Amino acid sequence: MKKSKWSRGVAVVGAGMSKFGSFPDQTSRDLIVEAYLDMKKSIEKDFDPSRVEALFVGNFSSDQFEKQAHLAPIVANWIGMSPKAAVRLEDACASGAAAIRMGALAIASGEYDVVLVGGLEKMTDLKIAETTEVLGTAADTQFEIPAGFTFPGFYAAMATAYMAKYNADREAFYHVAIKNHKNGALNDKAQFDQTIMEIMEAKKARAVEKGRPEPTWENELDFLRDPKGNPNIAWPMTLFDCSPVTDGGAMILLVADEIAKEFTDTPLYLIGSGQASDGALTDRETLAGIPAAENAAQQAYTMAGLGPDDIDLAEVHDCFTIAEIMATEDLGFFPHGEGWKAAIEGKTARDGEHPINTSGGLKSKGHPVGASGVAQVIEIWKQLHGIAGERQVAGNPKIGLTHNVGGSGQTCVVNIWERRD
Amino acid sequence: MKKSKWSRGVAVVGAGMSKFGSFPDQTSRDLIVEAYLDMKKSIEKDFDPSRVEALFVGNFSSDQFEKQAHLAPIVANWIGMSPKAAVRLEDACASGAAAIRMGALAIASGEYDVVLVGGLEKMTDLKIAETTEVLGTAADTQFEIPAGFTFPGFYAAMATAYMAKYNADREAFYHVAIKNHKNGALNDKAQFDQTIMEIMEAKKARAVEKGRPEPTWENELDFLRDPKGNPNIAWPMTLFDCSPVTDGGAMILLVADEIAKEFTDTPLYLIGSGQASDGALTDRETLAGIPAAENAAQQAYTMAGLGPDDIDLAEVHDCFTIAEIMATEDLGFFPHGEGWKAAIEGKTARDGEHPINTSGGLKSKGHPVGASGVAQVIEIWKQLHGIAGERQVAGNPKIGLTHNVGGSGQTCVVNIWERRD
Repeated sequence: MKKSKWSRGVAVVGAGMSKFGSFPDQTSRDLIVEAYLDMKKSIEKDFDPSRVEALFVGNFSSDQFEKQAHLAPIVANWIGMSPKAAVRLEDACASGAAAIRMGALAIASGEYDVVLVGGLEKMTDLKIAETTEVLGTAADTQFEIPAGFTFPGFYAAMATAYMAKYNADREAFYHVAIKNHKNGALNDKAQFDQTIMEIMEAKKARAVEKGRPEPTWENELDFLRDPKGNPNIAWPMTLFDCSPVTDGGAMILLVADEIAKEFTDTPLYLIGSGQASDGALTDRETLAGIPAAENAAQQAYTMAGLGPDDIDLAEVHDCFTIAEIMATEDLGFFPHGEGWKAAIEGKTARDGEHPINTSGGLKSKGHPVGASGVAQVIEIWKQLHGIAGERQVAGNPKIGLTHNVGGSGQTCVVNIWERRD
Repeated sequence: MKKSKWSRGVAVVGAGMSKFGSFPDQTSRDLIVEAYLDMKKSIEKDFDPSRVEALFVGNFSSDQFEKQAHLAPIVANWIGMSPKAAVRLEDACASGAAAIRMGALAIASGEYDVVLVGGLEKMTDLKIAETTEVLGTAADTQFEIPAGFTFPGFYAAMATAYMAKYNADREAFYHVAIKNHKNGALNDKAQFDQTIMEIMEAKKARAVEKGRPEPTWENELDFLRDPKGNPNIAWPMTLFDCSPVTDGGAMILLVADEIAKEFTDTPLYLIGSGQASDGALTDRETLAGIPAAENAAQQAYTMAGLGPDDIDLAEVHDCFTIAEIMATEDLGFFPHGEGWKAAIEGKTARDGEHPINTSGGLKSKGHPVGASGVAQVIEIWKQLHGIAGERQVAGNPKIGLTHNVGGSGQTCVVNIWERRD
């Protein structure tokens, strides 16, 4: 049963992003300009920038990464939007989706008809140990971090809890990485444009070049099992189980549904949305899933009047491979304890029953934390418009879902998008 | 002409705050609990915490001050609100009012009926030079900070521009400080519980105690003119022209107007609201005022269908004394160039024609940056309910305004509140 409490509907009519990667010569304000221009190109009909009434910026911590807080008015100024209202939303790695949700609610309220929602993060300026420390501030720094945790550690704890509870095969995680790199290799905005097979072959070739014995890896699983190819980070999370550190920006244009067709013939309507929070890991009843995700998903499904089987494809928050497997369960695509099997069986591949992360996901596309939640919508935009090129999902998909997690699951935002013909 | 585009109205039904000051043994999560409990006490009728649906947290940079980002779900957890949606809003020193505005829009949208809005900052853990650096990240750190600016410097530039343009007497700034300390001395939550006269007398007594000659200051102006009593910080801004570094939290309960009377017989309705942004100082046509404030005020007045003379009292963003004078002009209480005279003539005193900062303002109450915009509403709550004690404004005030500025004016949020009998 559909149950939207919103006073009016909201649609996305434009979506764009910067190239994701490591860009030492750029700052976050450069990245968002690139995303803005890409977004503008995506708008089929007229876009008059003066119609934009407000800017919502998802960003985790330019405070720490770039020593630049108060980013929202700077971003507004940088894309020519001063003196429009500009505000930054922060929910760690879910900042992007939190910004989308707030932008949408601001439209639903009647206050604004046209808002820009940006997400961005510039992460690669720091040394990797500093970056790990900054990311750690998304956890509880009074209770979790002093105990020795880092983010790979949190997800390693969840992975071991999951494996123990469901007797899951650790190799399921590898299948997530292999699939997401296959998708990301087809995405020209992705940080990694190589499949794991290609990465493996390149490593072999480098060994030969340097006169070392050629590694004997025969296939991707062989490669991923070998700590020489794929070192442990926090067992069972290996290097290829972790999403990278990334610079990037993404932007969408949200408008009130009654004016959406002024911008495009095929808006995507935001038909379901939910958000939930949670305490630190110590406060949770289970580590084998993310309760806030299940909660947010239920809100979004209820609002949309849909269930998991109505979703044609989803972009989920695979900051670590275990996170994707838990997401496919928290979202109801598979029962709890079955997600790992589905990953092995290819059910989440582009041609599977529940295509997940056709963009390459955070794993391969890259994870500029504040941008990721917005960038997920760019993929849904492309897939639902049938313009995703070689990675296009078949069968004329009409309903897409985005799932964005903050920290270790203290925040989750789920949004559902529909193309109506 | 009244012109609200909101789908429904919003009211505040509870308002509380922590003591403001320097609290080395507390963190921001402790401060917000104190504010939450104080807010609960203020609710006349029933308050069932399970009715709260979401939490909006205004915070500038716990990232940098406490190495704790992702503060919203932590705060939610700390006051027993998990798994309710929790999001942080950041607009530098206007973060508190930005959070109020977003919380209000989320209610106006129909999504939520009951939301908590908190503001908080824990600033005193760092050394003062570090704090100055952190506050500097609210400015443009690519263009302004490398030029040598700090925040006292920004407002000193505005003060000199103002003095030059309007031939203003530098001593007008002292009158703002004297007035705000007089008000703050009557506020038991204020960081400074002394008038400037009392501070002067205490300094005299200390000199005598230490066997030094007793200073000859005869009155407050004498004291403020003497660099031995009141050293220069960034001319013409002296020590007593600057708001302090503060720890503190504040919280309000916002609800849909149709249920407001379930919580109290006298809700305050949010009848006007506006927000605007701006670029760095170099991008502005004038430094003798804050264009974003004028813009936000116009939005709020238009929505409320009111003008400056309808406002019974206002809490404005006096991070520096010049900021209060500019605010009284940007808000239309006095014509541009006349605010400094009004300050000298006592027109902004509690018994003046436009009472400003009866709480003591940021100057005397303290300025925990993310909390200030929310704490302004606590004073409006008290004044409009006639419970402000010795600092109560006479004449049964019914309409109050809050004006919260981010950085040097890159953000401004103005809200107008009305008690209806």
